[in-house]
Amino acid sequence: MSSSAVLKASAALKARVRRPSMLNKLAKPEDLIPLFPNGAYIGWSGFTGVGYPKKIPTMLADHVEKNSLQGQLKYSLFVGASSGAETENRWAELNMIERRSPHQVGKQIAKGINNGDIKFFDKHLSMFPVDLVYGFYTKDRPNKNLDVVIVEATAITEDGGIIPGASVGASPELIQMADKASLGWRIKCLVIIEVNTATPSFEGLHDITMTQLPPHRKPYLIMAPEDRIGTTSIPVDPEKVVAIIESDYQDQTQPNAPADATSKAIAAHLIEFFEHEVTHGRLPKNLLPIQSGIGNIANAVIGGLAESKFEHLKVWTEVLQDTFLDLFDSGRLDFATATSIRFSPEGFKRFYDGWEQYHNKLLLRSQQVSNNPEIIRRLGVIGMNTPVEVDIYAHANSTCVMGSRMLNGLGGSADFLRASKYSIMHTPSTRPSKTDPHGLSCIVPMCTHVDQTEHDLDVIVTEQGLADVRGLSPKERAKVIIEKCAHPEYKPILEDYFAKAEFECMRRGWGHEPHLLWNAFDMHKALDLEGSMKKIKTWG
Amino acid sequence: MSSSAVLKASAALKARVRRPSMLNKLAKPEDLIPLFPNGAYIGWSGFTGVGYPKKIPTMLADHVEKNSLQGQLKYSLFVGASSGAETENRWAELNMIERRSPHQVGKQIAKGINNGDIKFFDKHLSMFPVDLVYGFYTKDRPNKNLDVVIVEATAITEDGGIIPGASVGASPELIQMADKASLGWRIKCLVIIEVNTATPSFEGLHDITMTQLPPHRKPYLIMAPEDRIGTTSIPVDPEKVVAIIESDYQDQTQPNAPADATSKAIAAHLIEFFEHEVTHGRLPKNLLPIQSGIGNIANAVIGGLAESKFEHLKVWTEVLQDTFLDLFDSGRLDFATATSIRFSPEGFKRFYDGWEQYHNKLLLRSQQVSNNPEIIRRLGVIGMNTPVEVDIYAHANSTCVMGSRMLNGLGGSADFLRASKYSIMHTPSTRPSKTDPHGLSCIVPMCTHVDQTEHDLDVIVTEQGLADVRGLSPKERAKVIIEKCAHPEYKPILEDYFAKAEFECMRRGWGHEPHLLWNAFDMHKALDLEGSMKKIKTWG
Repeated sequence: MSSSAVLKASAALKARVRRPSMLNKLAKPEDLIPLFPNGAYIGWSGFTGVGYPKKIPTMLADHVEKNSLQGQLKYSLFVGASSGAETENRWAELNMIERRSPHQVGKQIAKGINNGDIKFFDKHLSMFPVDLVYGFYTKDRPNKNLDVVIVEATAITEDGGIIPGASVGASPELIQMADKASLGWRIKCLVIIEVNTATPSFEGLHDITMTQLPPHRKPYLIMAPEDRIGTTSIPVDPEKVVAIIESDYQDQTQPNAPADATSKAIAAHLIEFFEHEVTHGRLPKNLLPIQSGIGNIANAVIGGLAESKFEHLKVWTEVLQDTFLDLFDSGRLDFATATSIRFSPEGFKRFYDGWEQYHNKLLLRSQQVSNNPEIIRRLGVIGMNTPVEVDIYAHANSTCVMGSRMLNGLGGSADFLRASKYSIMHTPSTRPSKTDPHGLSCIVPMCTHVDQTEHDLDVIVTEQGLADVRGLSPKERAKVIIEKCAHPEYKPILEDYFAKAEFECMRRGWGHEPHLLWNAFDMHKALDLEGSMKKIKTWG
Repeated sequence: MSSSAVLKASAALKARVRRPSMLNKLAKPEDLIPLFPNGAYIGWSGFTGVGYPKKIPTMLADHVEKNSLQGQLKYSLFVGASSGAETENRWAELNMIERRSPHQVGKQIAKGINNGDIKFFDKHLSMFPVDLVYGFYTKDRPNKNLDVVIVEATAITEDGGIIPGASVGASPELIQMADKASLGWRIKCLVIIEVNTATPSFEGLHDITMTQLPPHRKPYLIMAPEDRIGTTSIPVDPEKVVAIIESDYQDQTQPNAPADATSKAIAAHLIEFFEHEVTHGRLPKNLLPIQSGIGNIANAVIGGLAESKFEHLKVWTEVLQDTFLDLFDSGRLDFATATSIRFSPEGFKRFYDGWEQYHNKLLLRSQQVSNNPEIIRRLGVIGMNTPVEVDIYAHANSTCVMGSRMLNGLGGSADFLRASKYSIMHTPSTRPSKTDPHGLSCIVPMCTHVDQTEHDLDVIVTEQGLADVRGLSPKERAKVIIEKCAHPEYKPILEDYFAKAEFECMRRGWGHEPHLLWNAFDMHKALDLEGSMKKIKTWG
């Protein structure tokens, strides 16, 4: 087939694309290579590995591989959060990523960021799309804009509106970048739509709002998780759409991390805490909207709620995992809203099979709305997240191991923890090093990188116990965090640090938040040089 | 006069108190001593040293001093921000403060915090009043509440409403703590009103809103700084008011710090930046609402705007200083709103003399509203603040010198910098140490305490220049911050740190945000041991 051949739409595609003129733009991925010159700025739909474009990214990777163009076709890539491994991780492996923001998951992409191949910056997920439409990330480019935006749809409406799939993410704002009318001074950003016919249409599941610029921005009139304020599709100027591609396989998700004894112990402490707060009148009987992250602790907490006495729960979160289906099925969850549904393959099957039962209890919104501090604070969300490490004064590191090595990025952690009514960090008290099953204490004297400050966190919980630090001075916080949360093998080490730091700083009239500044990272040094934080000899 | 004598209200007081039954509660301060047992939890009105109660705090200090009760009458003190020096600073000197939150100014109170006499915690000023009504700060008390709230008024309305003076601060929420109806499970919190007859009535200048609790909280329907959404007085249940006191002197404010060459150079860089953003279509011609802190740099920036070409400016900020009067007088400022007016004595005179000219262009709101991220983000505020230090990756320390010694507290810095469209940190590039006029570099390898993260800041500016770090990866940020902002004497030292850190971390595959973790504070160590950060010999 030559590139000028007229493509015939499949029946499946015709069933999804209700605006016939869009079908005239049907293209083959390989014909679009000229739209992606070296140095292009590209936006993709997608969030937490669902709803991302598949065909174009894979075609471009094949193109680079086949023609040995590694390092010669490099792109700046902007996606709401992480994409599928077979796309961005493969791009990283082929050295196709010059710049990436604001979040990523994948061994090769993390490697590229940490070896200097990829310029990465992580930004609050609620702010990223806004800064994008402000023009902050494209200010130094000649066209002041992205070049191409690729969005996955599960259907296209009569008026050309895009029905996303399992995530909304930053798609509304990415589309806005292509819309001259709303952002007058920008030029030439093309839109490609990949219509996924392998995934069922998600029509009706989305609540789409676009971003207005100050001074014209309005309040988000959401007073409860079930409040709908937008449309069911993303409006797009049809003239900006240069091509439609049919996509033919589902999101490549992984199974969820199962709950283990540690995460179950953490969940039990948290549920006891919620009960305590209800008893004392600080939480309603059905709690307040819950935010829960990704991972096995999050799974254990949601699983624990499914087995609790709480009823009529609501969820206001960033991403829904399989356990939320259990929570729905337990009859305890009335409504859930997020920006993405990241189920396992089995979870998606269960979701599609139970569509009638679930679809009226769910809404997907843009990440600017799901993670918006305005709404999180108003609703009084219970925010929960897992850090790299927490320090004795209640700062937390969510991103950089040893202060330097990027894991995945900030994500929505600070969006939620900064604005929630209850800001909760849950973590195992230790993690294994190569030579010691408890080689890393997750409670440290001073975080090597700070993403959440002491002014943000209310509760720290490990399998050892729960530290409620609300209203406490730093020195009081240190005592309760060490006592309740630290692993028994690290308690004396941390107590010793605190005692020496307090003595030294009080002596000098510096005693508000005592630190031995020149030795604050000595536990990390012991880990680095001797394989375990326990190997620390003495403080200072 | 015995304590049982009936007090006769002065004519001045009668003119201010329009609800006659309130005058029956007129009391002498010294008769109220029994309401303040050792250990009491007390709330005061006041913010940035204006609108604070004067008579009762002074009377209690006199009582402690006269009867040598130092350390025997200690109180937990909650004030929106700082109070007057003759009240809280004197209390600190007399060891009368057990616990204090969320902000303070004064040599003696800082001393007490850093020597362990005072348990202090600093919290985002927008969140503090909310956490207070959540019951977070009184959860461990038998009555789950504050004991007494003392609020300064400049008038009392017919229905008993309190007209504050030059600040609103946390007064609405402090009053709510006394209101059984809205917070059913709490008991017995008394209200004392000090009616200040030495200050003119500020009636009409306030826009008062109370705090609803989730899940019943509503949006703040403010779309522009001039939008009024509340009442002109704070409603209070008259039965909760146990006493009225006449207060007879004005807020004891200090002269403002004058702009110097350094702060003027910083202001010039910023105004050039604003012009650049307007030129490139990222800011409207009249900019967006401006937030500016306290201090000589803030004064220089506002002074610079008064001499600029910008017109129809608006201000959405926490506190207004004298230079805002200049900005009004220049005809360039259309409207300003804040939670406090902290003018110098001369500034207040100028303000009262020009009342007719100013009063329709000003609104004072509660600190929960003035500092609310919901509104700051919606309006697209330009937020500016001065830190202790900034690091090469754009984290900032706003609170703790050497990571340990508390200055004044977080204040509203993170409320604004986390939510503003433009988050700007301005600082001199160096400060003097005892032996070296440039002994401290304000640009350091790693902040010794982090209050604002790399995910929050857009622009760093010193008298040397302006670093625009939007959309940059950490390593790009380090280069531009060192190049544009560091003092020439520190540039090679910081470049050397960055080069060595980059080499070490890249070698190990940790190169996202390179640090020499064991040596990151060596400049601080050189300052501590040898009197100047310049005295650092080598990195690692």
